Amino acid sequence: MTAIAPGAPVVGDLPAGPRNAITDVAGVTVGHHTLDAGACQTGVTVIRPHGGNVYADKVPAAVTVLNGFGKSIGLVQVEELGVIETPVALTNTFGVGALAQAQIRAAIADNPEIGRQWPTVNPLVFECNDGFLNDIQAMAVQESHYAEALAAAGAEVAQGAVGAGRGMSSFGVKGGIGTASRVAGGYTVGALVLSNFGTPESLIYAGRAIGPQLAARLRQDAAPEKGSIIMIVATDAPLDARQLRRLSLRAGAGLARTGSVFGHGSGDIALAFSTACTVPHLADAPMPAMPMLHESRLDPLFRAAADSVEQAIVHALWHAQAVTGRDGHHRAALRELLPDLT
Amino acid sequence: MTAIAPGAPVVGDLPAGPRNAITDVAGVTVGHHTLDAGACQTGVTVIRPHGGNVYADKVPAAVTVLNGFGKSIGLVQVEELGVIETPVALTNTFGVGALAQAQIRAAIADNPEIGRQWPTVNPLVFECNDGFLNDIQAMAVQESHYAEALAAAGAEVAQGAVGAGRGMSSFGVKGGIGTASRVAGGYTVGALVLSNFGTPESLIYAGRAIGPQLAARLRQDAAPEKGSIIMIVATDAPLDARQLRRLSLRAGAGLARTGSVFGHGSGDIALAFSTACTVPHLADAPMPAMPMLHESRLDPLFRAAADSVEQAIVHALWHAQAVTGRDGHHRAALRELLPDLT
Amino acid sequence: MTAIAPGAPVVGDLPAGPRNAITDVAGVTVGHHTLDAGACQTGVTVIRPHGGNVYADKVPAAVTVLNGFGKSIGLVQVEELGVIETPVALTNTFGVGALAQAQIRAAIADNPEIGRQWPTVNPLVFECNDGFLNDIQAMAVQESHYAEALAAAGAEVAQGAVGAGRGMSSFGVKGGIGTASRVAGGYTVGALVLSNFGTPESLIYAGRAIGPQLAARLRQDAAPEKGSIIMIVATDAPLDARQLRRLSLRAGAGLARTGSVFGHGSGDIALAFSTACTVPHLADAPMPAMPMLHESRLDPLFRAAADSVEQAIVHALWHAQAVTGRDGHHRAALRELLPDLT
Amino acid sequence: MTAIAPGAPVVGDLPAGPRNAITDVAGVTVGHHTLDAGACQTGVTVIRPHGGNVYADKVPAAVTVLNGFGKSIGLVQVEELGVIETPVALTNTFGVGALAQAQIRAAIADNPEIGRQWPTVNPLVFECNDGFLNDIQAMAVQESHYAEALAAAGAEVAQGAVGAGRGMSSFGVKGGIGTASRVAGGYTVGALVLSNFGTPESLIYAGRAIGPQLAARLRQDAAPEKGSIIMIVATDAPLDARQLRRLSLRAGAGLARTGSVFGHGSGDIALAFSTACTVPHLADAPMPAMPMLHESRLDPLFRAAADSVEQAIVHALWHAQAVTGRDGHHRAALRELLPDLT
Repeated sequence: MTAIAPGAPVVGDLPAGPRNAITDVAGVTVGHHTLDAGACQTGVTVIRPHGGNVYADKVPAAVTVLNGFGKSIGLVQVEELGVIETPVALTNTFGVGALAQAQIRAAIADNPEIGRQWPTVNPLVFECNDGFLNDIQAMAVQESHYAEALAAAGAEVAQGAVGAGRGMSSFGVKGGIGTASRVAGGYTVGALVLSNFGTPESLIYAGRAIGPQLAARLRQDAAPEKGSIIMIVATDAPLDARQLRRLSLRAGAGLARTGSVFGHGSGDIALAFSTACTVPHLADAPMPAMPMLHESRLDPLFRAAADSVEQAIVHALWHAQAVTGRDGHHRAALRELLPDLT
Repeated sequence: MTAIAPGAPVVGDLPAGPRNAITDVAGVTVGHHTLDAGACQTGVTVIRPHGGNVYADKVPAAVTVLNGFGKSIGLVQVEELGVIETPVALTNTFGVGALAQAQIRAAIADNPEIGRQWPTVNPLVFECNDGFLNDIQAMAVQESHYAEALAAAGAEVAQGAVGAGRGMSSFGVKGGIGTASRVAGGYTVGALVLSNFGTPESLIYAGRAIGPQLAARLRQDAAPEKGSIIMIVATDAPLDARQLRRLSLRAGAGLARTGSVFGHGSGDIALAFSTACTVPHLADAPMPAMPMLHESRLDPLFRAAADSVEQAIVHALWHAQAVTGRDGHHRAALRELLPDLT
Repeated sequence: MTAIAPGAPVVGDLPAGPRNAITDVAGVTVGHHTLDAGACQTGVTVIRPHGGNVYADKVPAAVTVLNGFGKSIGLVQVEELGVIETPVALTNTFGVGALAQAQIRAAIADNPEIGRQWPTVNPLVFECNDGFLNDIQAMAVQESHYAEALAAAGAEVAQGAVGAGRGMSSFGVKGGIGTASRVAGGYTVGALVLSNFGTPESLIYAGRAIGPQLAARLRQDAAPEKGSIIMIVATDAPLDARQLRRLSLRAGAGLARTGSVFGHGSGDIALAFSTACTVPHLADAPMPAMPMLHESRLDPLFRAAADSVEQAIVHALWHAQAVTGRDGHHRAALRELLPDLT
Repeated sequence: MTAIAPGAPVVGDLPAGPRNAITDVAGVTVGHHTLDAGACQTGVTVIRPHGGNVYADKVPAAVTVLNGFGKSIGLVQVEELGVIETPVALTNTFGVGALAQAQIRAAIADNPEIGRQWPTVNPLVFECNDGFLNDIQAMAVQESHYAEALAAAGAEVAQGAVGAGRGMSSFGVKGGIGTASRVAGGYTVGALVLSNFGTPESLIYAGRAIGPQLAARLRQDAAPEKGSIIMIVATDAPLDARQLRRLSLRAGAGLARTGSVFGHGSGDIALAFSTACTVPHLADAPMPAMPMLHESRLDPLFRAAADSVEQAIVHALWHAQAVTGRDGHHRAALRELLPDLT
């Protein structure tokens, strides 16, 4: 399994980082835990912003909710305080509670003062609904799966039907995890998506409107867009939370270029974080004193965020292999249906 | 235990409903499940907007986050779709995950199509940190406690150190659950709070600045405001989600009049819902066609919301009896410390 | 001058209304007043939601600020109250003050109680910076130009370098006013844009990435995206303000498909309004009692909004003829530079 | 006229700065221009964040809209970019357009590149409706009045019926300009309000619920709360825009303690800015590299903001002298009606 798809169509003309993955942002790692057993086709993906104790050393972050048909946890506090204090977890809609509990226990293990002398911790779990392939009512995701994904975290990122992406669908075919990166303005921007959105006829694939062709092959009736996409954007640029909110919105530009109109039933949510500095939990530690990027230098990063997200969606479709799950439901791989795609 | 406190000081001059409780809004019921065993001093409180299937027949709702130092789940979707589709659950910060799972299972039990032919369900759980009295690290709240609280729901509302309020503190004394109602503009507005905020010296008790007196009695050093308050506002006025957001903000006016400045560490969140109509889950059911209230008629409701919330906080302090919990931590009752309060 | 461009490339596969213009939404009219004299290349465009007194009979509305690098007036009150109470005015950045005053005077003329027995009126003026072609420092837009544009309002919509669009540029060529409509889900959605954004190399023209070709023809260095776009979306679907906010956001999907990443210096703002009902100014008039559209029926309208906006941008580029203005600055017409475009 | 009222009741127990005025924040100055001629009872107030060129050296800022029944201009860009780039202007509702134009011309005079090589400028004008005392339909505020107010700016702040406060009313008596400051957490927080809100019976005056007494003296029927309040908060604490938004919200706590429930018709808007650093307009100038305040150190500033705003409202009522204006309308001074107030 390789992280980079030689041959996957390329979005835009900005250069990618060496892995073409969110892990090109130094210090960021990604881990999956995949559940693949009959009607249970789901999993967990974790993104660590750095290798240390994220509660002790928080990173600046912000979110954009493009369409709030979603059940993620943790956004309220990120919006208020402008930091994340746990790794970012992704899973199916009904796994949020279990992973939130796992994140709490993991944070306490590393910081026993939590809920005692110190305040509590803000778990951060995003989700999409994989109920077509996965028996989501079974609530198969357990707390222990969080630790498994965390332990697997590294710089190589498996894509497609893995981790939280195991049961996800996009455009009527198999979706899931995709990642990409771009270098612009002297910084690296990386994206990782959990892609579970889109109707077949709407697909624009790296600039090519192949949706009608795909829909004809699938012979599906037009169905409403539902299922959601989570877009995580990382950068090493020195951006504060306000600037990161601006960056996170640009994920929506990349998403729209794939054919999405942010459908009513699709929870389309973006989170952006910066690794340029950390914010200490304790007030007696020194605060970062680095200059933030001048606002007029954001444009290359905005383009990099949009391109990375669009590229990550393309990668999710390129890598995802066919999966059969609950009640014999089947999602084909895009390249299997349209083998002459380049 | 009685729901109404004869003798509790009265806020404002609007008349209260017959119970002076959120359940004066017809159809609304409240249930508690209390955990009281040594270091485990916590619980669950549930508010049902009506007696039916809330997923099938949703109610208009909106939220205001005054200070987002909080870990509630479900707000993103309420903000987008303007409805709630489960009862409202309250508990401690680390019980959110368990209750979210319980709400999912309860919704599936009533609507087996969820996560199959239908979309998923949006659990709605609010929290405060009761870690001073309760061993919050023990994560004692279990899924089954949700059903217990739900089964106990009725029109009589126990107040003080019950349900989710069991381990909560306010102004350095025992806080917890309070409720109140006001009748204004031809409609009823009710509030229920989970009160867990406030420093002793800041307390304004139904208009009387007794904070310094209380602080002297407690001999505590000034500590930062932390701990949070959840304010649930119900009304039978025909308001849409935009108007309900406006109403929910006025909870903040009532809160401020008790001495709060929405402290940094206090998750101060308000939810308002209307029982005037329901919104069907299925598109082929008829949508409500009642006229919404003219905007210029909102002022009496705004005052009723602020007064109900302030009165509910007063009630929480009035009713809450002393509790000793984790590590011998003790919170006295306000009236025990200041017995000549009227 | 015809409102519909035979031969302009077509976006998407939804049918357009008879005029392919925002005025396909019954009752909506558009008027321009153009200033074209040497260094003065600017103007005013007005959209009337209905032919009556908009202060007396307001229409539901909402806004989305995709990128708030902009100086529009009136958005605060639209967001709070969910209605517009004047026609919508568009002009250059430094004309906002004059048009706001003109709107106030016009509203008073029709409603002499304003600022006396009644509250004030909320002027609603959007703007883009036409400073490349127009001597914007001269502040040429006068109050009287508002009445001129209003008097010219009709169902036929001139496009390109007219009205507020006179001095605007897009993608390094001449931009300005564009309009379009789509019929979907049993309703009509129309859009009118004031298009003044985009770098040449980023242009995607009705799905074709002709940016590099255009940039080569212009031999311009890549410049940051600045200049803004205002997107006005009208519909006859019965949507409340919350739903209209959702609709307005989808303008951003159409915008992104033309190559925009919502550049730092581009004020990208969308307003959506519904003509399905009016909200009376006076509380003693009956409120509308029509059922709003079920949320799950929004998807066709979302697509129609995105397609209408993208099509309106294409129309602006298709119709806009070359203009020479301040200091000999010149913007060529797109079709002049790339004559073989179809 | 003295800026400090010996004898005005004192809010809270935090110490005030030497002037008990917003100008205790070093570098901040305030100027008024008052129009007082028969039916014309209005004016302009200007707050300069520093003595230099605010466009060249912007200051971090943020806004909170508690109730958006208001027509201020400039908020959209402040929310996006987190800075202000002109002085802050206050006037009556129908003077916004004239002052916006004046701010544009003043910024161009200092920065001739605006609208040429540089982007445009974001005028920032707040307003309340003084139509009871002032013939607001006459639109008497002219562009030149902005320069007059600016030229008058200094550290001494006249209060009451001056500048933009000339025609404003609060609680059925004369309102207008008030200012105050508090020192807390090692920093100074100052507030200036344009007070034009409140019904007589609701007034809580520095903790004393004198509203019923005042209403009895006025013999007015209860009227809906309308008229608005603008609250400008300045600090020398090193806060970024996200933190300043948090600070600005606490103005609402001070406001609520005077009896306001953020009435439907009252535009209640707060702006906070920091003088701790400036953000250069040009990207090649160095960005500030100072550490922002640790989040957990915000509580004293939150209390200082709430107390300063409440005190500033008290000062406005204390200082405002009776005014007779349009059609013989009269507003008495509070201390004239209740002479035994201390």
